[in-house]
Amino acid sequence: MDNFSFYSPTLFEFGRGAEEKVGMLTLLTGATKVMIVYGKKFAKTSGLIDRIENSLRTIGIDFVELGGVEPNPEDTLVRKGIEMARKAHIDGLLAVGGGSVIDTAKAIAAGVPYKGDFWDLYTGKVNVTEALPVGVVLTVPGAGSEGSGNSVITNTTENAKLSLRTDSILRPRFAIMNPEMTFTLSAYQTAVGIVDMMSHILERYFSNTIRVEVTDRLAEGLLMALMAEAPKALADPTDYQARANIEWAGTLAHNGLTGCGRREDWTSHAMEHEISAMYPFVAHGAGLAVVFPAWMAFMTHHKPSKVAQLGRRIFAIDCRDDRSAAIETVASLRAFFGVVLRMPLTFKQLGIDNPDIPEMVRRLHANKGQVIGGYYRLKADDTEQIYRLMLEPETVAAQS
Amino acid sequence: MDNFSFYSPTLFEFGRGAEEKVGMLTLLTGATKVMIVYGKKFAKTSGLIDRIENSLRTIGIDFVELGGVEPNPEDTLVRKGIEMARKAHIDGLLAVGGGSVIDTAKAIAAGVPYKGDFWDLYTGKVNVTEALPVGVVLTVPGAGSEGSGNSVITNTTENAKLSLRTDSILRPRFAIMNPEMTFTLSAYQTAVGIVDMMSHILERYFSNTIRVEVTDRLAEGLLMALMAEAPKALADPTDYQARANIEWAGTLAHNGLTGCGRREDWTSHAMEHEISAMYPFVAHGAGLAVVFPAWMAFMTHHKPSKVAQLGRRIFAIDCRDDRSAAIETVASLRAFFGVVLRMPLTFKQLGIDNPDIPEMVRRLHANKGQVIGGYYRLKADDTEQIYRLMLEPETVAAQS
Repeated sequence: MDNFSFYSPTLFEFGRGAEEKVGMLTLLTGATKVMIVYGKKFAKTSGLIDRIENSLRTIGIDFVELGGVEPNPEDTLVRKGIEMARKAHIDGLLAVGGGSVIDTAKAIAAGVPYKGDFWDLYTGKVNVTEALPVGVVLTVPGAGSEGSGNSVITNTTENAKLSLRTDSILRPRFAIMNPEMTFTLSAYQTAVGIVDMMSHILERYFSNTIRVEVTDRLAEGLLMALMAEAPKALADPTDYQARANIEWAGTLAHNGLTGCGRREDWTSHAMEHEISAMYPFVAHGAGLAVVFPAWMAFMTHHKPSKVAQLGRRIFAIDCRDDRSAAIETVASLRAFFGVVLRMPLTFKQLGIDNPDIPEMVRRLHANKGQVIGGYYRLKADDTEQIYRLMLEPETVAAQS
Repeated sequence: MDNFSFYSPTLFEFGRGAEEKVGMLTLLTGATKVMIVYGKKFAKTSGLIDRIENSLRTIGIDFVELGGVEPNPEDTLVRKGIEMARKAHIDGLLAVGGGSVIDTAKAIAAGVPYKGDFWDLYTGKVNVTEALPVGVVLTVPGAGSEGSGNSVITNTTENAKLSLRTDSILRPRFAIMNPEMTFTLSAYQTAVGIVDMMSHILERYFSNTIRVEVTDRLAEGLLMALMAEAPKALADPTDYQARANIEWAGTLAHNGLTGCGRREDWTSHAMEHEISAMYPFVAHGAGLAVVFPAWMAFMTHHKPSKVAQLGRRIFAIDCRDDRSAAIETVASLRAFFGVVLRMPLTFKQLGIDNPDIPEMVRRLHANKGQVIGGYYRLKADDTEQIYRLMLEPETVAAQS
């Protein structure tokens, strides 16, 4: 176990009716006039925004609205939000939505007090030293932004999607999580959210750091809980208990708990990033459902030990040798993603008939370095192989 | 899953050399002059207090010392500390030790700004509304006070041991945890700490709340990690990795994470409390090693379901019917406590030859009510039966 700091000062208010506390919780952040950031549909049409505004009004907190956040949130709306916030003398943000909305609110929160262009904070030119308080009403679980200090924004001019990571300054002060708000998510949205959550855990799980038993067991426990509850939520979208367990697991998957005391991997996220950058119709979670099992399949040949441990513990695989156990683990994970979640498992199923693998590999290493990965160090030859494992089995055979 | 709030704003600074950050972390709490609270031996003789004082001096934080905290910390030292703190214009507390030291520091932190007698806060006469910031350098894991908002103090005049529970106001601002500081703990101290940690998890695990899969899995994961690492720490007290895993598990066992979304039980703690109140030589953890399996054994007859789930998941017990699985679970837990941890399992092994069970039962229900327990409601007849299960097997037979 490596040295670590763990600091998760977000207040999680979880359960039915939790949104009724939004006024009081906002008041406790010290804000007097907030910008309510939201997306396109649910928040407004469901009446949620109205209820939130009533709660703020009752307690004497003023507000303005900024709607229209899209998936893969962009710098243009952030800039508009910063300008609006400054003019309106906003002193707090309230994000009502999922990861894109929360990340936009965080970007505005950090951008308002910064004199220069907010993008400097994302390129790392300048460190974030202050930010307005951010509160969250979560309606789409998966990204985990409600419990993290991070924000991912796409700069459309520079064609760059960058992640701003802070220890605590951008962690939401509070996150209101009412699982009933997730009843209307489609099976597809539910599934991509679950893959995203599982990937957040797995990226941290695959580590060379020895003897991280506590963190391993917590990670495995969250994965098992997600796999147990996922089919229930898909069978009955209004199964409150399934929705509740999934939502809470999604927060713990990404608030740092499952990374305590170890180096993390994050190769699969980087590899998926290049796929959705070149093929923007690919949803992050769907891309990860293709990438992660392929990355793990590569590891069955090169470093099966942790893949084997995972399978023995979460899929009750009892093969003695690591390689066989790892192979079965990959098959089990693929079955879960493909059969239970109905997620794509290949480029073709993602809708990419002729993926430009050489270009993905080139971009990946241009962005992330010649050698990448925390669990196993991968060069361009290796990542190319992993991308090729995402082709249809017959295509792989034909090309090899 | 029930509605819940989870708020754990403590910064955990974990690992080798973590104590070097004590000056900086204290500064961040806003304190300018702290009272360093410690126990009797280790903190002073090991040079730890000197190193902490140097760190504070370097950063310009003034301090006074309050040593001599004993196990089952008492009101008299708290009162002395409050008086000292007021005279010296202390604006922060720094606890260097284990649960007793931290609980004393918390009591002083809450007592200083309160005009009346601090005991009012423990009896519930008055709610805590303000407190000085508390920082922790943990040297004895087990009680979990470094991550909780609670404090337990014994009033010697009134012969009462009361617990003050706060959501967040008494949570330490930071907790410095260097597992090397636990190398000198004896096998016995290590074992009672582990039983205490496991009991904190189990008290929350035994719940009637349905569908708390995430919280269940986290609890089971922590228990499995503790059981895996315990023998390693006992075999080699300087096994850093084992000490580290145990120490971190001890914090997560009691910071609220394993209770999220459910009602909890806490009967075994209440029953142990009466044993150590009447027989003060009984260490809390040792008492729990006797009580918890007896409570669970009672449940094999009355409500085996959750005991069975526990055993299936953490001991890989594969009996189909709940009662048999529960019986095997109790046997497995007793084997772990008795054989691996070398903890007592009966009154006799605790050093109590003729326990006054009727008096324990009387006091228990006088303190806690006619019917107690969150998982299964117990009347005096039931708790008497459970206490009788802690007698030597032959004694039980002879009396029944």
